[in-house]
Amino acid sequence: MTHTQDKKLWGGRFAEATAELVELFNASVGFDQRLAEQDIRGSLAHVAMLGQVGILSAGEVAQITEGLNGVLADIRAGSFEWRLDREDVHMNVEAALRDRIGPVAGKLHTARSRNDQVAVDFRLFTKEAALDLADKTRALRSVMLDEAEKHLGTGVILPGYTHLQVAQPILLAHWFMAYVAMLERDEGRFRDAAERMDESPLGSSALAGTPWPIDRFATAGALGFARPTANSLDGVGSRDFAIEFLSACAILAAHLSRLSEELILYSTFEFGFLTLPDSHTTGSSIMPQKKNPDVSELARGKAGRVFGNLMGLLTVVKGTPLAYNKDLQEDKEGVFDSYDTLSIVLRLYAEMMPKTVWHAEKTREAAARGYSTATDVADFLARSGVPFREAHEVVGGLVGLASRSGRQLWELTDAELKAAHPLLSAEVARTLTVEESVRGRQSYGGTAPEQVARAIADARKALGA
Amino acid sequence: MTHTQDKKLWGGRFAEATAELVELFNASVGFDQRLAEQDIRGSLAHVAMLGQVGILSAGEVAQITEGLNGVLADIRAGSFEWRLDREDVHMNVEAALRDRIGPVAGKLHTARSRNDQVAVDFRLFTKEAALDLADKTRALRSVMLDEAEKHLGTGVILPGYTHLQVAQPILLAHWFMAYVAMLERDEGRFRDAAERMDESPLGSSALAGTPWPIDRFATAGALGFARPTANSLDGVGSRDFAIEFLSACAILAAHLSRLSEELILYSTFEFGFLTLPDSHTTGSSIMPQKKNPDVSELARGKAGRVFGNLMGLLTVVKGTPLAYNKDLQEDKEGVFDSYDTLSIVLRLYAEMMPKTVWHAEKTREAAARGYSTATDVADFLARSGVPFREAHEVVGGLVGLASRSGRQLWELTDAELKAAHPLLSAEVARTLTVEESVRGRQSYGGTAPEQVARAIADARKALGA
Amino acid sequence: MTHTQDKKLWGGRFAEATAELVELFNASVGFDQRLAEQDIRGSLAHVAMLGQVGILSAGEVAQITEGLNGVLADIRAGSFEWRLDREDVHMNVEAALRDRIGPVAGKLHTARSRNDQVAVDFRLFTKEAALDLADKTRALRSVMLDEAEKHLGTGVILPGYTHLQVAQPILLAHWFMAYVAMLERDEGRFRDAAERMDESPLGSSALAGTPWPIDRFATAGALGFARPTANSLDGVGSRDFAIEFLSACAILAAHLSRLSEELILYSTFEFGFLTLPDSHTTGSSIMPQKKNPDVSELARGKAGRVFGNLMGLLTVVKGTPLAYNKDLQEDKEGVFDSYDTLSIVLRLYAEMMPKTVWHAEKTREAAARGYSTATDVADFLARSGVPFREAHEVVGGLVGLASRSGRQLWELTDAELKAAHPLLSAEVARTLTVEESVRGRQSYGGTAPEQVARAIADARKALGA
Amino acid sequence: MTHTQDKKLWGGRFAEATAELVELFNASVGFDQRLAEQDIRGSLAHVAMLGQVGILSAGEVAQITEGLNGVLADIRAGSFEWRLDREDVHMNVEAALRDRIGPVAGKLHTARSRNDQVAVDFRLFTKEAALDLADKTRALRSVMLDEAEKHLGTGVILPGYTHLQVAQPILLAHWFMAYVAMLERDEGRFRDAAERMDESPLGSSALAGTPWPIDRFATAGALGFARPTANSLDGVGSRDFAIEFLSACAILAAHLSRLSEELILYSTFEFGFLTLPDSHTTGSSIMPQKKNPDVSELARGKAGRVFGNLMGLLTVVKGTPLAYNKDLQEDKEGVFDSYDTLSIVLRLYAEMMPKTVWHAEKTREAAARGYSTATDVADFLARSGVPFREAHEVVGGLVGLASRSGRQLWELTDAELKAAHPLLSAEVARTLTVEESVRGRQSYGGTAPEQVARAIADARKALGA
Repeated sequence: MTHTQDKKLWGGRFAEATAELVELFNASVGFDQRLAEQDIRGSLAHVAMLGQVGILSAGEVAQITEGLNGVLADIRAGSFEWRLDREDVHMNVEAALRDRIGPVAGKLHTARSRNDQVAVDFRLFTKEAALDLADKTRALRSVMLDEAEKHLGTGVILPGYTHLQVAQPILLAHWFMAYVAMLERDEGRFRDAAERMDESPLGSSALAGTPWPIDRFATAGALGFARPTANSLDGVGSRDFAIEFLSACAILAAHLSRLSEELILYSTFEFGFLTLPDSHTTGSSIMPQKKNPDVSELARGKAGRVFGNLMGLLTVVKGTPLAYNKDLQEDKEGVFDSYDTLSIVLRLYAEMMPKTVWHAEKTREAAARGYSTATDVADFLARSGVPFREAHEVVGGLVGLASRSGRQLWELTDAELKAAHPLLSAEVARTLTVEESVRGRQSYGGTAPEQVARAIADARKALGA
Repeated sequence: MTHTQDKKLWGGRFAEATAELVELFNASVGFDQRLAEQDIRGSLAHVAMLGQVGILSAGEVAQITEGLNGVLADIRAGSFEWRLDREDVHMNVEAALRDRIGPVAGKLHTARSRNDQVAVDFRLFTKEAALDLADKTRALRSVMLDEAEKHLGTGVILPGYTHLQVAQPILLAHWFMAYVAMLERDEGRFRDAAERMDESPLGSSALAGTPWPIDRFATAGALGFARPTANSLDGVGSRDFAIEFLSACAILAAHLSRLSEELILYSTFEFGFLTLPDSHTTGSSIMPQKKNPDVSELARGKAGRVFGNLMGLLTVVKGTPLAYNKDLQEDKEGVFDSYDTLSIVLRLYAEMMPKTVWHAEKTREAAARGYSTATDVADFLARSGVPFREAHEVVGGLVGLASRSGRQLWELTDAELKAAHPLLSAEVARTLTVEESVRGRQSYGGTAPEQVARAIADARKALGA
Repeated sequence: MTHTQDKKLWGGRFAEATAELVELFNASVGFDQRLAEQDIRGSLAHVAMLGQVGILSAGEVAQITEGLNGVLADIRAGSFEWRLDREDVHMNVEAALRDRIGPVAGKLHTARSRNDQVAVDFRLFTKEAALDLADKTRALRSVMLDEAEKHLGTGVILPGYTHLQVAQPILLAHWFMAYVAMLERDEGRFRDAAERMDESPLGSSALAGTPWPIDRFATAGALGFARPTANSLDGVGSRDFAIEFLSACAILAAHLSRLSEELILYSTFEFGFLTLPDSHTTGSSIMPQKKNPDVSELARGKAGRVFGNLMGLLTVVKGTPLAYNKDLQEDKEGVFDSYDTLSIVLRLYAEMMPKTVWHAEKTREAAARGYSTATDVADFLARSGVPFREAHEVVGGLVGLASRSGRQLWELTDAELKAAHPLLSAEVARTLTVEESVRGRQSYGGTAPEQVARAIADARKALGA
Repeated sequence: MTHTQDKKLWGGRFAEATAELVELFNASVGFDQRLAEQDIRGSLAHVAMLGQVGILSAGEVAQITEGLNGVLADIRAGSFEWRLDREDVHMNVEAALRDRIGPVAGKLHTARSRNDQVAVDFRLFTKEAALDLADKTRALRSVMLDEAEKHLGTGVILPGYTHLQVAQPILLAHWFMAYVAMLERDEGRFRDAAERMDESPLGSSALAGTPWPIDRFATAGALGFARPTANSLDGVGSRDFAIEFLSACAILAAHLSRLSEELILYSTFEFGFLTLPDSHTTGSSIMPQKKNPDVSELARGKAGRVFGNLMGLLTVVKGTPLAYNKDLQEDKEGVFDSYDTLSIVLRLYAEMMPKTVWHAEKTREAAARGYSTATDVADFLARSGVPFREAHEVVGGLVGLASRSGRQLWELTDAELKAAHPLLSAEVARTLTVEESVRGRQSYGGTAPEQVARAIADARKALGA
């Protein structure tokens, strides 16, 4: 980026030049050049409207439009020279336009302010980011659903955990469906946010609207917004749309951190439930045997930056008076960063999950450990009329007995079982396999194969795929 | 709260008693007793369903139902003895039920776990809290709209600020409408959250569903949920509904902190724009002359706890494996606290705004200061064909000239004006009052009276009021 | 708490009574009554000083002192009636004093304001809390050090992890010493914070000092502060001491969350490294076999509230002008909550760690898995002159070979080893046990027994114990 | 940055190449190249030590040293080609070294791991950043102190605010000294943090130390550290030093946000207390009259990113097991960003404050408004023996009377004053000027000129300047 100071567009009444450090501090072009496409789209819509309502002549409109397209072409080609002394993307683009087409460029800014200009640029970006993350969340959901379907077929059984203690056996497919449910809500949050922010602030001008006879519905429509914002102060001064986007990002990041944690755990030697693909793991510079789940670790850690970005923007907005304050310039980097972060994590998981190999024997064996079918014994007793709390206590005693002698429940003797409760027997114990346990959980949303199949079918319908 | 240790419901296999400090640490009854109503409603729905599907007899259902109603009556009457050693609201209620109706109470917990029990209780609470804050947000919106309408009538003019520098004059009514717009979106966020969480986790059991032939649609319906959750792991292990609620709270708190900041500023001696009602301000113990805007200060400061609650729950969830972990017990206090905080702030503002007296002369005078109509001069030049950037520079020079000599723009001489630009004159300058400026901003969403009237009418329609 | 409105102490110029909801909102007595001891200590020091400098007579001092002690006795006895309409702890105490000793009570507030009064109360509390957490952190450090020493004796070997993949074998004692190091820094942060805040704001009065001839050094000394604050605006308006305290809390909470995570992992069936004491775990209401590491889960989750409290207070302070604003009333609850939270977690871990049973065979076995001595082979080659990067690659190949054929490194044949590198042989491989690996890591701070012994001795010296 | 994939240094056992997106995701060279100087300094110290203890020959040490210096020269010259496929700064430097000096480069990594390498690089950076911010904080403190001294000379009187309501008159010099006090503590926090982190992790190797006979005290000394870390797990796995740095940053940012808020307020038309220098303000693209306090607004807003960075790193660390996890790669950007942010804000304020012009008449006039001397009347009565609470009430009544009739206290009649209290009179009222009020507040730390002079002298001594 170059830095040759040209005349400030707002310099009319200033006696002293801006201090160099202030220029560096104020300049946002280092990051807001990312809004160049949005900025030029906004300007193209604005100038077209200025022509339609007769503020500019057809010739002026044509000149400016051609000029803007030229600038855009330069930017796309990478040949645009961004200048720090021109502060921001808007001033860089406008100055380049002036260089190209001369003083008529000055007419572009008629009936517009940097306040509504940046507001419309940033909304365009954020709305598109929200929709894109909605799509990518949906894509990962689709992948997880495919995996669920695949593993419903293989019948892989996984231990279901609470407190990270083996609790009850579940289908691996059922585990995948839990993430399908989370991702569905995540997508919903992005779409709701996109819809709520689907309003064009362009034409709010500095803060109060403008005396020029502009048509805000025309520019809103041209830019793909559902409508213009209804209040000019709100249009230039509110950033709740960006905070809502960051909230949706933070919740998604939290979900992805949970998935990451589970994959990290399941790929340890100790769990040994799965092998991550070589393509998505890395080695160690000093320990040749290592195969590190870097993608999942980073994905888990990156929840930090997304939470931080949310906290950051909330702090920025807190206690600021209406309408625009320069503080709001701090709104963009966190949105860019959260968007980039989640985009890549979602894509990586969509790539990685289908290449992950699950070790059915290990997971089945683990699911059988820890007396995971004890609840089934209690339920058996309860269904025979024993009050549940009593049944629970009986089985608790049996687990203690088995545990002290290093046996499984089905290895207890007939005598031991009958002593615990007359309704129990070795025969009863024998039926208590993990497969039986899974098959039995037929309640809606439960882990029985029929229920999971139904859930998969419903999810497929919801995906429209 | 009393603390006499009775037998733990899960104590079957434990050889050693729970350490006293652990009891204190684990116990949630200190705060989750707030869920007592929800807990008993959940149990009533559950037991009714157990009867419908034949798991319990009609007699058992009647006994348990009567018992639960008795417990509820005790709680409502304040005569219920909460016991710390019974850990949480669920165990307290169930133990009280057992005390009342004997061992049959044990059958209530058939086909249920504390995991889905707390999940349904907490969802009921959070959904109702979201809907209640939606209503209260709407109520404040309605008040702000009434104020807008009132002040459209009075025609009070306020300085519009950017960077807290007087920028352009606006109508006070227009300022009120900015908050109407923000509050409308805030309400939308609460309603979207309530809708997304409108699913009953009851029947998810510990994590995998249950072998009992329960009817989850029946309990969901009885509790007013739109549907049961589709995956049992997700039903007991997800808390995104609470985080989404807290996000909506945080954004609302940020908006209220902005309103608070403005009221604090406007009620200073220096601004002097308004007088807050005695009923909603306080004095000083040492400075008898003080009239402190405590409500607004506290409302601004309370953004802190709401942001903190959001950050807290995000942190809790980060990196935890499925399904339930005890960490999740930390989900409630932040939701309770944010709900209580915003409930009272919304009510206070609804009370206070109509009693706030605006000083029209002071605001009008302030709006005229600071060359706030300079843009209008620039716009006048631009409409006469001068490129906007050039017009801006001309006016910038005039402001500098006026400012250096301590005059307003309309106090410049004809010669000075003409020297700056031939199209300018003393006559032109004379028309540049704040009233003219306001009247001129006729763009949609602008501050001209007709536009504000239209915005008020639209907002009234949206409120259905 | 009762609520009968008596005359506001600041009510002189107010025409209208405070709205009921405002009273409820403003009142801090619900939480700041916790500062009662500090408040009365502050008042006792203040009144004694007022006597010393001749502002009050000896008789007045005696009367007020006796009265304050009476109030304190009532509070300690639990017979004090806290009243919401008296707003805060200060007004409650002062009103009770007036009830006891009549109008002379009014002289206590001479040369003082609620602003410096609350500042001194809160500083006393926070300083004591910081020192207490420093002590409790030290106590846990001492426990961890004892455990390190114990397990240096038993020689238990644990897998050392990076990326949660077994990396290299370490001594369990070494693992304990890592936490000793963290806790030492945590203690240091609390002590630094306590020292930096060791200044008495009493006598700053409302914000500007007082014309009364008070002696701030006397009250500072009487209250155990090192000195009075040097600037009255800063004295009443700054809360960085509380934020620094919360920062130290947040870092400690983060450390405790890491310890918790490890204990949760190590107590799973899959790791099986340790058994937590029955006294510090709980069971499940539905799964009789469960033994849940609730203490560790809650301790991990409670990082959330501590982080949230820190974020909350930072938000409160952000952007507030000097000196005191009512926002600052929001400073206390987060400090109380963080203090209570960490107090109990530190005590619980100090209780629990010595009762935790480690399973040396399981940890040794796990430490041998995963080719954890591969680095030792590489180091052997490197020490024989092979460039490290080449050695690394050779061993990487061997690990691949062994892994594909399900063998350990020491199960490779002489031929296979020699083919990989001529310096290798079956004999070399045989020496590569986990014990040898541990014994070899003799660098300062390394896991070799001599090094750990030295670290323990140093840590004991640092503890002065 | 170029991206040509060369052989992974850890690739020995991997069958499949790393996915392209994974490379992009894992690579940290985009930001950690900022650690290049630290990385090479670490390597130079390491290789020198390897020579001293006889692990490398003198010739090897010379070769590697020369090579590293060559690489460093390239980096400084900007001619170094950073490659994304080489992942991070360490691998980039090492590969460049290999390109330069051949296979002997491979010996540099003897007895070292990337885990301790990045830990030492990052500690060097953070320690230097902490010391640099300590210095810059001190520099701003010195500037504020100079301003205090200057304005003690001019005797400018400022209104002192509580609740942003004029409370009592103070000296402007006193206001400056409040920030001097805050900045002194801020500096202390940075220095404490720097001291606590002043330990070299180099030689911790991957996590357990190394069998090579290295000398960690030598490398610690060469790098300017006070000592090596005492535990290798802690050395590679802890990041509390970075969080403590970020905490100090957050508190400083909060202080700067308060200063910013005050400058923004004081430079409004409504307050009119000061004029910011043209060099440090900017104009508006649409409102030629605007002079925006951008520096202060941005400085206030940037508290957001600093708080967010702190929250981010706390989140990253939360719940991660020992020792190193890839999550920790997320530790750097927040530290870099907070450091850069505060560096520039501190420098800008050091530039801007001396160029800020205070308007003594305006501030004096404002200080007299709002019955700011009412406390002095109450104090007068109290000193004549009236109980303070009664005096307060009397004056409250007078303020009400004056306020209702639009007068100041000294404009009340003798009769009115005497009616309020017999000790009052017009003569008494006449002495109650703001100057008298300020002069009277002689308590230590108060705003009386002698006290402020003493505080300035003390502060100058503390600064050693």
